[in-house]
Amino acid sequence: MAKLTNADLSTESFIIDTRKSPYNRVSSVPIGAVKLGDGFWKPRMEANRLNGIPALLQQLEAHGAIDNFRRVSGRKAVERQGPVFTDSDVYKWMEGAALVLATTKDPAIKSALDGVIDEVVAAQQEDGYLNTYFWGERAGERFTKLESDHELYCAGHMFQAAIAHHRATGETKFYDCALRLADYLTQEFGPGKIEQVDGHAEVEMALTELYRATGKTSYLDLAGFLINLERYEERKQITGHAVRDGYIAASATDYYAETGKPGIKNALDIVWKDMSSSKVYITGGLGARYAGEAMGDPFELPNENAYAETCATIANAMWSFRLLGVHGQGQYADMLETSLYNGFLSGVSLDTTHWFYMNPLGCFREYQRSPWHGCTCCPTNVVRTLAAIPGYMYGVSNEGVWVHLYDDSTMDYQLADGRGIRIDQKTHYPWDGGVRLTVAPQTPANFSLYLRVPGWNREMSVEVNGEEFKGTISNGYLEIRREWKADDVVALDLKMPVEMIEADPRVIDDAGRIALTRGPIVFCVESPDNLNLPLRGISVSSKDKFEADYDPKLLGGVVKLSGHGEVARGLDEAPLYRPLGSVKSEKPQQYPLVAIPYYAWANRGISQMQVWIPVRK
Amino acid sequence: MAKLTNADLSTESFIIDTRKSPYNRVSSVPIGAVKLGDGFWKPRMEANRLNGIPALLQQLEAHGAIDNFRRVSGRKAVERQGPVFTDSDVYKWMEGAALVLATTKDPAIKSALDGVIDEVVAAQQEDGYLNTYFWGERAGERFTKLESDHELYCAGHMFQAAIAHHRATGETKFYDCALRLADYLTQEFGPGKIEQVDGHAEVEMALTELYRATGKTSYLDLAGFLINLERYEERKQITGHAVRDGYIAASATDYYAETGKPGIKNALDIVWKDMSSSKVYITGGLGARYAGEAMGDPFELPNENAYAETCATIANAMWSFRLLGVHGQGQYADMLETSLYNGFLSGVSLDTTHWFYMNPLGCFREYQRSPWHGCTCCPTNVVRTLAAIPGYMYGVSNEGVWVHLYDDSTMDYQLADGRGIRIDQKTHYPWDGGVRLTVAPQTPANFSLYLRVPGWNREMSVEVNGEEFKGTISNGYLEIRREWKADDVVALDLKMPVEMIEADPRVIDDAGRIALTRGPIVFCVESPDNLNLPLRGISVSSKDKFEADYDPKLLGGVVKLSGHGEVARGLDEAPLYRPLGSVKSEKPQQYPLVAIPYYAWANRGISQMQVWIPVRK
Repeated sequence: MAKLTNADLSTESFIIDTRKSPYNRVSSVPIGAVKLGDGFWKPRMEANRLNGIPALLQQLEAHGAIDNFRRVSGRKAVERQGPVFTDSDVYKWMEGAALVLATTKDPAIKSALDGVIDEVVAAQQEDGYLNTYFWGERAGERFTKLESDHELYCAGHMFQAAIAHHRATGETKFYDCALRLADYLTQEFGPGKIEQVDGHAEVEMALTELYRATGKTSYLDLAGFLINLERYEERKQITGHAVRDGYIAASATDYYAETGKPGIKNALDIVWKDMSSSKVYITGGLGARYAGEAMGDPFELPNENAYAETCATIANAMWSFRLLGVHGQGQYADMLETSLYNGFLSGVSLDTTHWFYMNPLGCFREYQRSPWHGCTCCPTNVVRTLAAIPGYMYGVSNEGVWVHLYDDSTMDYQLADGRGIRIDQKTHYPWDGGVRLTVAPQTPANFSLYLRVPGWNREMSVEVNGEEFKGTISNGYLEIRREWKADDVVALDLKMPVEMIEADPRVIDDAGRIALTRGPIVFCVESPDNLNLPLRGISVSSKDKFEADYDPKLLGGVVKLSGHGEVARGLDEAPLYRPLGSVKSEKPQQYPLVAIPYYAWANRGISQMQVWIPVRK
Repeated sequence: MAKLTNADLSTESFIIDTRKSPYNRVSSVPIGAVKLGDGFWKPRMEANRLNGIPALLQQLEAHGAIDNFRRVSGRKAVERQGPVFTDSDVYKWMEGAALVLATTKDPAIKSALDGVIDEVVAAQQEDGYLNTYFWGERAGERFTKLESDHELYCAGHMFQAAIAHHRATGETKFYDCALRLADYLTQEFGPGKIEQVDGHAEVEMALTELYRATGKTSYLDLAGFLINLERYEERKQITGHAVRDGYIAASATDYYAETGKPGIKNALDIVWKDMSSSKVYITGGLGARYAGEAMGDPFELPNENAYAETCATIANAMWSFRLLGVHGQGQYADMLETSLYNGFLSGVSLDTTHWFYMNPLGCFREYQRSPWHGCTCCPTNVVRTLAAIPGYMYGVSNEGVWVHLYDDSTMDYQLADGRGIRIDQKTHYPWDGGVRLTVAPQTPANFSLYLRVPGWNREMSVEVNGEEFKGTISNGYLEIRREWKADDVVALDLKMPVEMIEADPRVIDDAGRIALTRGPIVFCVESPDNLNLPLRGISVSSKDKFEADYDPKLLGGVVKLSGHGEVARGLDEAPLYRPLGSVKSEKPQQYPLVAIPYYAWANRGISQMQVWIPVRK
């Protein structure tokens, strides 16, 4: 095996461990097997480690979420604090902290996490049960309010945190605690036992992952039972609560990867098509409605009133990543990428201390990220997702090795046959489409390198060791099959022009408007860059060319777009409503118009923002 | 005086009695002085009398709102029911019933109203206080929760109901009860006494009307105190809760009409300009936001997510009618008309039994009118407004007589000098712009007839006794000054083409869209008329001509518009988001497209609906 440059880090720290999943095509690469260079994601992961995770732990302590465990263990006499699902926020924080330990040996994080693990484990009941809400005066209500009270949801997040901790550190204290609770659940739930499911999906994914970690089929069986397979097989659309329906879809995908149940795969394909073709925001956001935090009807995608909860975008990324594994098709990687760079990343401030719950695509009122939310599911979901980013980037299959996401990084792992392989990736992606990959197998070997060709790309070129490579792109991946030897170099150049994107005309909220994109990045116009311009009432010309320039000082380093916006003059004298074309403004006023990445908005105080801009022919 | 054809009806039944208001230009004409013919409004008022008012009384009884009074009087031992402001719903129902008695002698309404009056009066306390919420266990909280608990708001609606009843019937039982409460309030509130105002404006209008009815300046003074005049003089915009801010503006207008306080007039002009030029829906609806039921920012006017509470449209009509009196300018009559025919009338089903609270301008989800709302402010507001409609139609000033709204009707009233005058109006307005007026003064007299020329009109003609009349239109009214003698005939012809209306481009939710209007009516496309057409994704051509046809069998008799909608083909194969112009559909599919009056939508079961339609150049 090749020398592991990341040898001091966990090589078991999978987001999902699909190495042995019989119905999965491209298996994951551990988070710890990918070392990030000075690219896009590393500074965000560092900010997560240095700011986000410590700050959230302080908030969780300040709001009594850890004390809830101390109350149960008898270590502290306090009232229970927070919503019914507050335990899950602690667990998501723990998962985030554990995943940090998969890529660093941060002693502060390790020590803080050890402390929280101690509190959690001490709160476990004799029978394995653990939930701080159903204790004391509510102990008798255990498993009686599954529809509303997130009891198994909390357990699921506990399992995921424990798995992440075990994989990152090899330690067993928390993991054993999780197994005790999981075993208790398998005793209590299932056919002939408690035949109900939780109102909020989550534990199903976690149970399948516990099965992957332990081989115990009772966990997988319980996952299948809770997914309610027969009902899922009838599903034609994504619907209802956006996060829950995303999680149940991700759970069903995990279950399919293990079992190959064909009805589930058919349903998943139909539901994903429904989502991707009619219900997802251009940012990867899901959930059009405030009411019920719900998916909307097809093409119901309001902008200012978008709900697009950060957790729902994460659910989209989690699900799409799982389908990418099952299918090995670029459309899922496109969705994963869109979600991560846009609707997910908008959920957190650049310094990783403030959080959005809703992610509107236009804003003309006071709306900012907060350091704490009474329902803090999104912030804790963000920290665990940010800590896992390297695990989304590469894949391995029997045919070879896959590059799903481009970022400056080194993957040091192994092919399906166990032979070591290192891929060194140099790139300024997503600001530039040039990617230089050095492929270094342990010994020369014949396999395929699958390079993702993003759905947004229209023109590209590839060279292998300096010679143009002509290959076919199949399902979003360019396959380069050859005998690879150490230090073969692949140079990929994805052209990255600024594009004006239109929506399907059935999205009536986007009718007559365009969004600016470049590569995977969705842009927006925000008032701090356009102080002389009234953002309400601007339009852009479809013939205008926006220039892209990287500005290292702007918003932590971004490409900004520069073009022109037009504002009709004399508006204030004209009636609010008037016959079409009856108001002849003089020569309309042209203003310089600057667009920034959508994810970076709302980092400079109260602002106005718009993604979809009215366009003139 | 000319023979009063309506002599059996009240000639004191003013919406607001501005006959003696020194700073009011055009005073009101009593509701009972206008007899409706077989035009637009009469069947709606009849449905209100026969269906709406009886049905709402049943609902109020069924939900314990009348029992609340019986509880206080000791006639029934029950728990108090409903929200804190439920008394006001009873009072608004009473006002509606009383106003019916201004135009009919319906014995069933009379008897029902007498019964409710008896219950209300019996609940009054010794000191004059009357509110069923602050009684018994909450008696000690009287006047301690003004900001949130609608205590004076309820009193205001009681005053308005009592005034309406007294004016319609001459009876004093309820009126005296109201005066006792009003006197109690003047003892308790004011400088040096309780120096707080109610969280929900309403009582201010009522107190000024009590002053008009009684001449007691203490009522006017208390109105001024509660309006908080100094703060209102600083106002630059309509803001906050849409109904409350509309009511306070209407209150301030009433107060100005009596006092001429110049700072108030300036503020009202500025706030009305802010409303009419940037914050009102094309339907007259107010309130863009669900959050706080609030006005939005300028040009924040979402369609599907419009709040546009029926009560807020009514507030707009009430305020605009008051400003029309003060200024005698057509812009206020335009707003009144727009509100009544569109955003107000959409609040009620055609049979006057089901009610909207929110009035969206687009709908792609399940949304229907309900026979009852837990917060039933809108239905009771609708019944009192429908019963008052004839009182909005005409006006009188020192210069002559004014026709504000066109409808088949006979006004039998008097000029400012007391000379009788009858105006007989024959028209099919709003379906046709032809209006034939027979003007019959008691004796020949020189005065002006002011005919409103609606803001929507682009072309018109007038004949007086068969000869073309050329006059100047000033501030929205055509003045015809001459010596009028019995049976002079004025023929007005307002051309009423179908128009495509655009919004100010700062209304980004309407960018690239048009609304169809004809005369005062705003149209919408609704799915029952367009079953073969997917309403999401249609567009219309700016060059298409929509034909208008009156269909007596459709929706109680409406003009419907017929034109074409276009749907691009092959949409399902194209990506949801794609480069502008990259999807070349074949020849787009043309469908017949039918539009109906907006007010009539949602009367045929669950439907989809859209006012603002994407337009192609």
